[in-house]
Amino acid sequence: MPPFANTSALESFRPLFHPRSIAVVGASASSVSGGNRFIRHLKAFGYQGRILPVHPSAERIEDLPAIRSLADLDEPVDYAYVAVAADAVPGVLASGRGKLRVAQVMSSGFGEIDGGQAMEDRLVAAAREAGIRVVGPNCLGVHSPRARVTFTERTGPEPGRIGIVCQSGGLGIDILRRGRGRGLRFSGLVTVGNCADVSAAEIVQYFAESDDTDVIGLYVEGVRDGRRLFETLRANSTKPVVILKGGRTDQGRAAAASHTGSLVGSDHAWVALARQTGAVLADTLDAFLDTLLVFQCLTPAAVPTRRVVLFGNGGGTSVLGSDAFSRAGFDVPRLPDDIVAALTALELPAGSSVRNPIDTPAGALQKDEGRLFPRILDVVGGSGALDALVVHINMTVVLSFRHVDMLGNLVDAALRAKADGFAPHLALVLRSDGEPDVEEKKRDYRARAVAAGIPIFDELASAAASLAGLRLVEAFRAGLDGQIGGRTVSRRSAAP
Amino acid sequence: MPPFANTSALESFRPLFHPRSIAVVGASASSVSGGNRFIRHLKAFGYQGRILPVHPSAERIEDLPAIRSLADLDEPVDYAYVAVAADAVPGVLASGRGKLRVAQVMSSGFGEIDGGQAMEDRLVAAAREAGIRVVGPNCLGVHSPRARVTFTERTGPEPGRIGIVCQSGGLGIDILRRGRGRGLRFSGLVTVGNCADVSAAEIVQYFAESDDTDVIGLYVEGVRDGRRLFETLRANSTKPVVILKGGRTDQGRAAAASHTGSLVGSDHAWVALARQTGAVLADTLDAFLDTLLVFQCLTPAAVPTRRVVLFGNGGGTSVLGSDAFSRAGFDVPRLPDDIVAALTALELPAGSSVRNPIDTPAGALQKDEGRLFPRILDVVGGSGALDALVVHINMTVVLSFRHVDMLGNLVDAALRAKADGFAPHLALVLRSDGEPDVEEKKRDYRARAVAAGIPIFDELASAAASLAGLRLVEAFRAGLDGQIGGRTVSRRSAAP
Repeated sequence: MPPFANTSALESFRPLFHPRSIAVVGASASSVSGGNRFIRHLKAFGYQGRILPVHPSAERIEDLPAIRSLADLDEPVDYAYVAVAADAVPGVLASGRGKLRVAQVMSSGFGEIDGGQAMEDRLVAAAREAGIRVVGPNCLGVHSPRARVTFTERTGPEPGRIGIVCQSGGLGIDILRRGRGRGLRFSGLVTVGNCADVSAAEIVQYFAESDDTDVIGLYVEGVRDGRRLFETLRANSTKPVVILKGGRTDQGRAAAASHTGSLVGSDHAWVALARQTGAVLADTLDAFLDTLLVFQCLTPAAVPTRRVVLFGNGGGTSVLGSDAFSRAGFDVPRLPDDIVAALTALELPAGSSVRNPIDTPAGALQKDEGRLFPRILDVVGGSGALDALVVHINMTVVLSFRHVDMLGNLVDAALRAKADGFAPHLALVLRSDGEPDVEEKKRDYRARAVAAGIPIFDELASAAASLAGLRLVEAFRAGLDGQIGGRTVSRRSAAP
Repeated sequence: MPPFANTSALESFRPLFHPRSIAVVGASASSVSGGNRFIRHLKAFGYQGRILPVHPSAERIEDLPAIRSLADLDEPVDYAYVAVAADAVPGVLASGRGKLRVAQVMSSGFGEIDGGQAMEDRLVAAAREAGIRVVGPNCLGVHSPRARVTFTERTGPEPGRIGIVCQSGGLGIDILRRGRGRGLRFSGLVTVGNCADVSAAEIVQYFAESDDTDVIGLYVEGVRDGRRLFETLRANSTKPVVILKGGRTDQGRAAAASHTGSLVGSDHAWVALARQTGAVLADTLDAFLDTLLVFQCLTPAAVPTRRVVLFGNGGGTSVLGSDAFSRAGFDVPRLPDDIVAALTALELPAGSSVRNPIDTPAGALQKDEGRLFPRILDVVGGSGALDALVVHINMTVVLSFRHVDMLGNLVDAALRAKADGFAPHLALVLRSDGEPDVEEKKRDYRARAVAAGIPIFDELASAAASLAGLRLVEAFRAGLDGQIGGRTVSRRSAAP
């Protein structure tokens, strides 16, 4: 029986996310193994607790005094990073009895390989016997920026409010790195691998209880205890949950079996789980990240988002954007006559359209020293005619007006509007040609916008798909039907 | 009646794509208008023909001698760029009688605005009367790198074999710029705007006849003569056609009406058109570009592509990739026992999977000085067990092995395999965290790979969707059913 069964997940996994001391089992005295790299990452990330390398013979590892065995510890450590051969893992856990709270086992060679289940059973038995919770095996580590703990590089130290449970180590790294570039900031990420002992649901529960976390993301291939995950998600009524489910097709399921040894349930069960808990299912890594970003930036509204106004430069882009929002289940309604009249009074140039989508040549945005865009924001912001405004900017075109910082003015105006309580959801699409000069500007403006709570997307289609996740959560909370990607979602539709 | 009705499209539009001389109507003597910018773009792009500014009073425009009127020309010019107020356009065309072959009218204020249809009718009447073909109005220009003609900057001089007909000027620029960054190379691009005289179908016909063009892309919101487009596409049996259709939803249709004045037909008609002509419908700009890249690089096979092998580093990515290919209608089949045995004999490390997806830790690829990957290519390439191999590389992980150019070795091996006649389609997915150092490498390797005929994608999901377009063309040509995005496509399914 799990030793912490009667404690909260917050208490159970505080040693994982906020370890006061860390043991490292499997660092090498003569070469650079995963354990060595972990110690280097800890130091580089600024970890302030005690690091205790465990080695059968070496005096020092990575310039730190080593101990022979977990059994030699004078006081218990919170967390151990274990990366030794699979058949040595049970012994390591046994030596940690009374000395260790949470072990994360990186080693592979357990349930994910043919004939490895017996080894995984031994691991679990040893952990239970020693009173240690085990994360993994077959994973990569934990990332907890507030505690200055990480298992990889290029992740950034900035803590945030997105908590991630990830069954794939490599994908966990991708989530941290690609996510960081998009402005996502994490409270924590745990790679959970085969989930032999600690389940994905338990970590979800931790994030649900933690004050550091507002949004939860889950990459999972299969769960042993689907009921527990369902109950956990069902009980979590305040924090949006985004699920990237690997193995939703027959061929993906076959791949998952050899990846994490998961016996992957039918896709129907996952669709039902999302429907009944208000979780958002994403289909790709990029959609997962974009949807998490939406929830990092925007607070779900009481009334589900439906009416979207598009504003930007580019007629074809406006047409394709209208298609994308329409496909994602939104309305792009013609604006009421009084709003059209107010916009018309702003004297937009020939080639502009003010009905929605509002489309104006880039040059027009220079008018009156850049005051046109703030005026448009004023007119539409207070109109009550929309639930979300999506501003799309063709960066390359806008940047070609070199004598004025039109892009800066646009982003500044959006930030001011947001700060002044612009009522509808506000999102920005920065469309780039991918060239380094434009991408550099995009990084700058993205950082500023996301810090101010305005999500940034690369294209209108991804904005539409991600905002559909927001609407789904809003609709679920309102007890209404939502719809995403053609799938109808209703709180009331029962059937497990 | 169109004056070139009895000539081929190739002859009719040679003056548009390969003008020996260009008149510019609407360049300013005192400020910088669209006409001035066009002259500057022509010069910067290296246009070698005669440029003739037309101005009612100025002696010189952009350092070139100006003439008063097209009527003053001593000999006919091939192409005129016309950017004057809408109501002045008919007079300009009348003055070009006998002096001008093709005019492109950039001016807006015609059929795309309320009450503008009469002006558009006058334009067409004047053009017919003067014996001049008119492209536009409400467009931006023509890009023809072999003739060193362009209407914008940041497009690159390298000519290629993709011809584009684009009803939106801004989107045309996006296609050139974003497309260039992805490795697309163009034979030409024409923005056709309202298509008052010259239809999209006529330019498609030009590209179908032109030896410079192998692949045709079409962005269109609406066509006046759908039958002609259908017949043109139907008659074109050799060049793949990719269509990005704006206004496929009700809300997109409303936006299109105020953009190009298009009366957009039902989406059903477009699905039917694609089904009956073997054209590929793309839903987003990015999918459009990726699909064009596939056809630039890969030659449709006689037997439709179905069996895909995935190879790369990243277990979760392999699972999600299997899902993506499965959703796009491909098989990711378990490899035959003899191939599995041959791969097993290569002694991939623990954590590898060789069944398909083939998944191996990045570090393994260093083995034997990087010879592992070429051996894998050898084993699968000649096996006859697959139609396409998709190699996905987590660049950030691979680049972290700093003492060896693992990424370079991987790309080189793929290029060698392709050069040595690797039988299945070969595609590369370079997955990046978006940071500048990784993106720079990606640009380098992308350029090399695409030049060698290997398409590069950002993610497995976009590779899957784009290769589905290839399969659709293969299936259409084989007279078989294809399937893309859940839509079944069959040559034999009639019904217009």
